[in-house]
Amino acid sequence: MKRLDEAPRSEAHRENNNWERENHSDTSHNKSPLLADPWKPCRQSRGFVKEWLLKLRCFLGTVCRIEWYGYAALGILTAILSFLMDLSVTKLLRAHQWLYMKLEGNSLLQFFCWTLYPSCLCAVASSFSHHICPFSTGSGIPEVRTMVAGIEMPHYLSLTNMFTKFLGLICTLAAGSTLFLGKVGPFVHLSTMVGSYLSNLCTLIQANKEEKAAGEMLVVAAAVGVASCFGAPISGVLFSVEVMSSHFSLKNYFPCFFSVACGALTFRLFSVWSGDGETLQALFKTNFPTALPFFPLEILLFALLGLLCGAVSRCYLFCHRWILQFTKTNPVLLKILTTEKGLYSGMVVFLLASLTFPHSAGQYMASKYTMKQLLTSLLDSRQWLSQSHNASVQLESEPLLEWSSSGSPIYFSLAVFLLMKLWMLVLACTLPLPAGYFMPVFIYGAAIGRLLGEGVAYVSFTGVTSDQQWASINPGGYALAGAAAFSGAVTHTLSPALLALELTGQFSHAVPILLATLLANALTCSGHCPSFYDALSISKRLPHLPSLIKACPRLPSTPVGQVLRAKAVQLQKAAGPVEVQQAVNTSAEIQIPVVDSHESQILLGFVLRSELLMFLQYCKTETMEKHLDEVCCIHPSSALLSPHSTVQEAHSMLSLVGAQTLFVTDRGRLVGLISWPEMKRILEDLAKEI
Amino acid sequence: MKRLDEAPRSEAHRENNNWERENHSDTSHNKSPLLADPWKPCRQSRGFVKEWLLKLRCFLGTVCRIEWYGYAALGILTAILSFLMDLSVTKLLRAHQWLYMKLEGNSLLQFFCWTLYPSCLCAVASSFSHHICPFSTGSGIPEVRTMVAGIEMPHYLSLTNMFTKFLGLICTLAAGSTLFLGKVGPFVHLSTMVGSYLSNLCTLIQANKEEKAAGEMLVVAAAVGVASCFGAPISGVLFSVEVMSSHFSLKNYFPCFFSVACGALTFRLFSVWSGDGETLQALFKTNFPTALPFFPLEILLFALLGLLCGAVSRCYLFCHRWILQFTKTNPVLLKILTTEKGLYSGMVVFLLASLTFPHSAGQYMASKYTMKQLLTSLLDSRQWLSQSHNASVQLESEPLLEWSSSGSPIYFSLAVFLLMKLWMLVLACTLPLPAGYFMPVFIYGAAIGRLLGEGVAYVSFTGVTSDQQWASINPGGYALAGAAAFSGAVTHTLSPALLALELTGQFSHAVPILLATLLANALTCSGHCPSFYDALSISKRLPHLPSLIKACPRLPSTPVGQVLRAKAVQLQKAAGPVEVQQAVNTSAEIQIPVVDSHESQILLGFVLRSELLMFLQYCKTETMEKHLDEVCCIHPSSALLSPHSTVQEAHSMLSLVGAQTLFVTDRGRLVGLISWPEMKRILEDLAKEI
Repeated sequence: MKRLDEAPRSEAHRENNNWERENHSDTSHNKSPLLADPWKPCRQSRGFVKEWLLKLRCFLGTVCRIEWYGYAALGILTAILSFLMDLSVTKLLRAHQWLYMKLEGNSLLQFFCWTLYPSCLCAVASSFSHHICPFSTGSGIPEVRTMVAGIEMPHYLSLTNMFTKFLGLICTLAAGSTLFLGKVGPFVHLSTMVGSYLSNLCTLIQANKEEKAAGEMLVVAAAVGVASCFGAPISGVLFSVEVMSSHFSLKNYFPCFFSVACGALTFRLFSVWSGDGETLQALFKTNFPTALPFFPLEILLFALLGLLCGAVSRCYLFCHRWILQFTKTNPVLLKILTTEKGLYSGMVVFLLASLTFPHSAGQYMASKYTMKQLLTSLLDSRQWLSQSHNASVQLESEPLLEWSSSGSPIYFSLAVFLLMKLWMLVLACTLPLPAGYFMPVFIYGAAIGRLLGEGVAYVSFTGVTSDQQWASINPGGYALAGAAAFSGAVTHTLSPALLALELTGQFSHAVPILLATLLANALTCSGHCPSFYDALSISKRLPHLPSLIKACPRLPSTPVGQVLRAKAVQLQKAAGPVEVQQAVNTSAEIQIPVVDSHESQILLGFVLRSELLMFLQYCKTETMEKHLDEVCCIHPSSALLSPHSTVQEAHSMLSLVGAQTLFVTDRGRLVGLISWPEMKRILEDLAKEI
Repeated sequence: MKRLDEAPRSEAHRENNNWERENHSDTSHNKSPLLADPWKPCRQSRGFVKEWLLKLRCFLGTVCRIEWYGYAALGILTAILSFLMDLSVTKLLRAHQWLYMKLEGNSLLQFFCWTLYPSCLCAVASSFSHHICPFSTGSGIPEVRTMVAGIEMPHYLSLTNMFTKFLGLICTLAAGSTLFLGKVGPFVHLSTMVGSYLSNLCTLIQANKEEKAAGEMLVVAAAVGVASCFGAPISGVLFSVEVMSSHFSLKNYFPCFFSVACGALTFRLFSVWSGDGETLQALFKTNFPTALPFFPLEILLFALLGLLCGAVSRCYLFCHRWILQFTKTNPVLLKILTTEKGLYSGMVVFLLASLTFPHSAGQYMASKYTMKQLLTSLLDSRQWLSQSHNASVQLESEPLLEWSSSGSPIYFSLAVFLLMKLWMLVLACTLPLPAGYFMPVFIYGAAIGRLLGEGVAYVSFTGVTSDQQWASINPGGYALAGAAAFSGAVTHTLSPALLALELTGQFSHAVPILLATLLANALTCSGHCPSFYDALSISKRLPHLPSLIKACPRLPSTPVGQVLRAKAVQLQKAAGPVEVQQAVNTSAEIQIPVVDSHESQILLGFVLRSELLMFLQYCKTETMEKHLDEVCCIHPSSALLSPHSTVQEAHSMLSLVGAQTLFVTDRGRLVGLISWPEMKRILEDLAKEI
């Protein structure tokens, strides 16, 4: 599909940027436009620097295409961002812990320290994003995948958005396990912004402007964002593939993995330099027994766990959809959420923090743990049960310490954790601040798995089965499978299974984890239930076709003829300068259709906007009346739509086949045209009907 | 793209099978056609059984769609096949080893035992496949991916082919490391055949014939084939995705992983029952140190290894292409290969076996090892160097035993292995028997990595660097990275990196392995060098577009107008029964285009063949002349091509957008049509031009 269209499309791309400069640079190709600018100061030294830069560009271009430097830079920059964020979040969390420890003995002060610290942070994050860039709230994944699907949304890629999102996310993460929100979504958004800047830079640098790299960079950036959050290169790429697109072009595989590998390396080097030294080993160290990781009969338990996770995830998704709907319909909440975002965030977080206060209900929820500590403790391969029995011997075994700090049995703690965190997480999803929702779900799933694992261990311990093998089962394996299954079910993806393996390095559990994830997904996906991100897309009315299909399967099969805008600007073959001038003025399209005559309306092909401008210039200089077809080349349009084609067909032709503009013809007569902006409008109209 | 087309397409599918029966079953939907057949015996008991089967079908259908049982069955059957094959190959290999050991002392007899056993096996395999099914030779992956791309090749899915391939592959694998060929390719082919049968079965069983599952099953089967070879579920799926297609639809992800998980579970249970008990742990156990798997500076060495593997793979691919060309042009070889396949195989294997005879050059190549032992020894984390120094202490350390059995230094053995195996492998690729080429390449890469790793260990041992850290480097890690990089470079894929991790369970080396694989791939893919499978596709002139593009980038941008067959059968709107009868007789297409009139040729849409037959029947029963448009519904064609569209565009519209037939129109007038059979013809014509 590429060959024939390549020239017109890259032409179109140029056009999009700035046709005049491009027209100019066509004639003086290797000279910088800066040099030609008469009013710029220091022309001599600028010229010198420019020359060197051009030489450098030539040298870089000989090794490989300029995009590859962009991909490398993307990976490295994202890793640096991730590293910086982790560093600041750790410092902020430690400060909070230190303060809380220092106030030991004074419960009231401890309470205020425990509650006000995260409330203030979240209030700051909310007001900050409200006042500087309202587009920076939430996960960002729904918006990114809309952009990856081809729809342009410039607001979401602005520099202020990046700045706000970065600072807001640090505040959110510093609120720790009280708020129980994660990093993945916003980080994907952040890396997409970095990617879009690098993509622009690459286009600017590229000597040979014919090559384009805009769309690919977004896909790569999304993958890098996920991967650099987890330090899990392979599953990061796969997760982004699954979440972002419904079709994946394998030509993006190499750039994705290249960029991710660069990022992972940078991360590794940074961690060595910072004295941490273990980042790129398994992020969550586990010690599962490798000799015989699980017994054949345990497979059934893993299957049961998968079904359980699927059921809980359906419940969670239902609550989430309900609260999304509620925040949009309840007038009080709607008013607060539009005007008093900071106040709302502060109040909600204060409520959450009071509940997790270690001297109140928090003692049953291991609330002193950070997110990372929570996960590590849940993935512990030792049975907590046996530890609590040998507590005198293993006092140093940290995992036990928090989960049974209240003195109540660990089952009770786990159950309270699961019950409380479910509604707390749903509530936290309404907060208008940059936050990710994947890691909380992952940890929640681990808790479900742990509960089942510990339950099985208890049953076998009390001697229901005399079989020795059941006594040595590993609840950590269940926690890992539960984490993968629950997070997979909530996001409707399978790659969390690989993520769980990559995070812990436990390949022995590959099959049960995959099985649990599959079953959980099967249960959640049945009956066209939208995923977490789909629900967000639908609630935000984003022009994202796959979500629309899930919300209302009937909508995307609307015939194109019904949703087309009245009439496309068209030129007849024999158009003169006046008609061309009028067409250029009224139409913003890059490809303008040419018909045989205004009466017959038979489509001949299209001309590029840039060619029309050249035609006008030509007519001005030559001062004689010429017809369009005498000067311009009429490009044949390769793929056509009929008015009976569905919106979905048009969308897949735009995105998969890679056409820029699709002409809709009825028996050869032009009816209209569909380009990406038009498609965006159509999808937005359809989203309103839900 | 699905909605509007769904009905016509599934209709088309029916049509394809047997329109008459379907027409009948439309009226009596739930009654089996068998019951209506008057001449079948035992109608009473048959009817009884049928009724129960129908009830069972209804019950199965309520749980989930019938295909899912097919996917499960596919995974289980493939795992059973894989298990049976491994079992028989192990027995045959042990028999050979036993015989060779028994003849200890008599070199001549040992020589004959060593050489004639594999020669006879290969000769048998060759003659067998030559006489029973000539399509069963070779890897099968090029053919499978042509089929996955949408082209029908019924010869390659026949039952005789399956039988021949299974037995032939056992013979090939039983020839062991002498022949140095693997299992992956033919196994993918085998599982595709199983998949195609199951797919037919599912279509037969399905109560609701509207749902189709043909294409998906092939994709799933390819994934299952790879995964069940390695016992590596996740990378199996990814490898098949990378090799098979250029775009991957994520809706195939779930079936793939489901099927693979079923297969992996079956494998696990079988291995437990057979007392092996370790199959689904890492297939190749390694003991890499996890505390500090590698030093930051070693990254540079891994990068170097990647480049080295890339360079060697270019050389290997060049030799492979050369020998493919040579066998096709050399008249003597061509004659032998067409008539005396058994003799040729026997002779070549005899040559290879004489060279690997342990008392001749074989002693420098560790030729007594089986393929699995070779890989295990190469991946050993201990430095062979230090072992050979402490040989007296570690006499039990098996890896050393074979590689330094000749008394020569291990570097020499490794170098001889690399030099000899390169041309031996290239020669083995010409053998006309079912054989896979992935595993040999994987092991070869491991040897390259091992040589580098041992070299670095030697350099650090002799004290070139005083740094202590270099003394403890792990050559096994280099072997693993080398294996992934080399096999990735040869096949132009990245998933061997994940495969290496999954086979060994060593996630600590993820980043260096990924880096080496990326660099090796970058070096091999530069300059549009076709991959191993591409070369096979091109040499066999398969109608596979991506390979054609690599072979000759200019070809697929041929305009469709140039390659269209003279004239498509068409009907005019007002066609009577005579014209319809003629069209039905002359055209084999499922969708027959309808034009306004034969003069204007303006395309209105299409009618289905089944509708035309109904129209004819209607005209017969009603005995009155009716026009086509009065009886049949003319379906509007949704996507159109212009004669200027390229073949590549047409291909991507057929495969990605999922259209069944594309109509080519010029200014509204029908010029021709492109369906899959037509596309196959076009691609075959293009392949001839190379």
